[in-house]
Amino acid sequence: MLDLPTFDDVCAAAQRLDQHAHRTPVMTSRTIDAELGAQVFFKCENFQRMGAFKFRGAYNALCRFSARQRRAGVVTFSSGNHAQAIALSASLLGMPATIVMPQDAPAAKVAATRGYGGQVVLYDRYRDDREQIGLELAHRHGLTLIPPYDHADVIAGQGTAARELMQEVGPLDAVFACVGGGGLLAGTALAARALAPACKIYGVEPQAGNDGQQSFRSGTIVHTETPQTIADGAQTQHLGQYTFAIIRRDVDDILTVSDEQLVDGMRFFFSRMKMVVEPTGCLGFAAARSMGSALQGQRVGVLVSGGNVDMQRFCALVSA
Amino acid sequence: MLDLPTFDDVCAAAQRLDQHAHRTPVMTSRTIDAELGAQVFFKCENFQRMGAFKFRGAYNALCRFSARQRRAGVVTFSSGNHAQAIALSASLLGMPATIVMPQDAPAAKVAATRGYGGQVVLYDRYRDDREQIGLELAHRHGLTLIPPYDHADVIAGQGTAARELMQEVGPLDAVFACVGGGGLLAGTALAARALAPACKIYGVEPQAGNDGQQSFRSGTIVHTETPQTIADGAQTQHLGQYTFAIIRRDVDDILTVSDEQLVDGMRFFFSRMKMVVEPTGCLGFAAARSMGSALQGQRVGVLVSGGNVDMQRFCALVSA
Repeated sequence: MLDLPTFDDVCAAAQRLDQHAHRTPVMTSRTIDAELGAQVFFKCENFQRMGAFKFRGAYNALCRFSARQRRAGVVTFSSGNHAQAIALSASLLGMPATIVMPQDAPAAKVAATRGYGGQVVLYDRYRDDREQIGLELAHRHGLTLIPPYDHADVIAGQGTAARELMQEVGPLDAVFACVGGGGLLAGTALAARALAPACKIYGVEPQAGNDGQQSFRSGTIVHTETPQTIADGAQTQHLGQYTFAIIRRDVDDILTVSDEQLVDGMRFFFSRMKMVVEPTGCLGFAAARSMGSALQGQRVGVLVSGGNVDMQRFCALVSA
Repeated sequence: MLDLPTFDDVCAAAQRLDQHAHRTPVMTSRTIDAELGAQVFFKCENFQRMGAFKFRGAYNALCRFSARQRRAGVVTFSSGNHAQAIALSASLLGMPATIVMPQDAPAAKVAATRGYGGQVVLYDRYRDDREQIGLELAHRHGLTLIPPYDHADVIAGQGTAARELMQEVGPLDAVFACVGGGGLLAGTALAARALAPACKIYGVEPQAGNDGQQSFRSGTIVHTETPQTIADGAQTQHLGQYTFAIIRRDVDDILTVSDEQLVDGMRFFFSRMKMVVEPTGCLGFAAARSMGSALQGQRVGVLVSGGNVDMQRFCALVSA
């Protein structure tokens, strides 16, 4: 039996994050409200520290370390936002952090992780198993492994974003969150079930990588190859044990959108809302938008997960 | 004698704008705080309605119309954010708006102005005088002319941005605002002098168009040719009577920055703060940044004036 996190854990995480995470703004757009005939509230985690919601889960998890765990430090594997979230959180809490990243990770991401004080261990993604390397480092040096999503404290931390959203704007009729490994969606579900029991909870994946949708509908965790999509934060190959259990229990459906819809979302956020949103951060919005009149008259929450997209890449994507 | 607006007028404007203008977020960046050894507060008018602070002054001015003025409507001349601000404000207040725009204005801006319900009158900028056309239309049809900056109600409205900023973060040691015709700077000065008497107030212009700086230093309004700069919101040729009188009385200095510094600012806002800021909106930040250690230990306010930059143009500017 898994010891799943609860809404109480989300509330405890919110206390730990108070004064450390940004209470990110909720933005609205009259244009999109008119288009959908709905009231849409965007929770802007692109304005979170290090540019994504991942800070919430990482910081919450590290806060719960014992004195002994802190002295030895944390290890994780990630080429994306979780790497920087762990490195930054560890630096704030004064503990060492080891991050296992692929050799071919973008130099900027490696540099950013090192910039936050993280020690980077590179591996060959065609030959090595990153989870194995992480576990070995943990074992050899007494480090505590905090994986990117399949961890109760990480899920509880991610749930604080939706909790803040509903505290600020009141109950919602529907909420949309992106799905990679399912940490944000599971945390969002814990918050939404507690604060707005009737709220429809939707996860959103890239069409090319719909393992979460398949898992949700089949009732068993489906593994896929690394999907070809511009949503690099949702290129995970499978849900986790914890995230799947919560998603299966609390979520209403998992939807998919195309990369073209994500690019349209990036253009909309830029032109109409003056915000930079990474492709993965557009998943929830793209799905809400494609539902069209089905959301009429509703109060809709959209988690905007992050804004970490290289400027050159952004310009190439929106110009294509 | 000009009847200059006062801080009381700014407060009255704030009441008129309540529930109609966005109370825009104040954003911070640990990166820039560390770089300058200061605490910098960005007042983000790029998130204002129609994407710029101009909504504040326009809406405030139109609110003060008599019933008879409302029936006849408003006329203005502008190819930029003021055109959309007047069109949107007039539409919200249910009055007709006529906007005099150059024939070669970007199609998107003409379309946006029409989209807000404004009636657009085009003129040839090489042959016609836009102020003359505006005055003639006002005279012939009984319209009230609201110019882009040289008007007491416009200035008082623009001052509400700095007032909100200081209400939210407390007194500041220095504040930076961009200067085109001087409406934002004059309004900022009214608010800052009242709420933080010791605050240094800086206006910032593009190097290529430093008529404001020349005017400030010489004590008389200097006219220039339309300057060659990417800061299209600051391509005005001279300050106004009202704005100059306030700026001369209350402002500490007018500084200039290069177009390269503006592009660096756009890159910084995009990459580190996940915000879209138009070139003119980067003037204040670029000047603050170039002061370097002179701001050490200070609490600094920066007015980010707007985010209306075409995505293709943005990408071309930051890639150059």
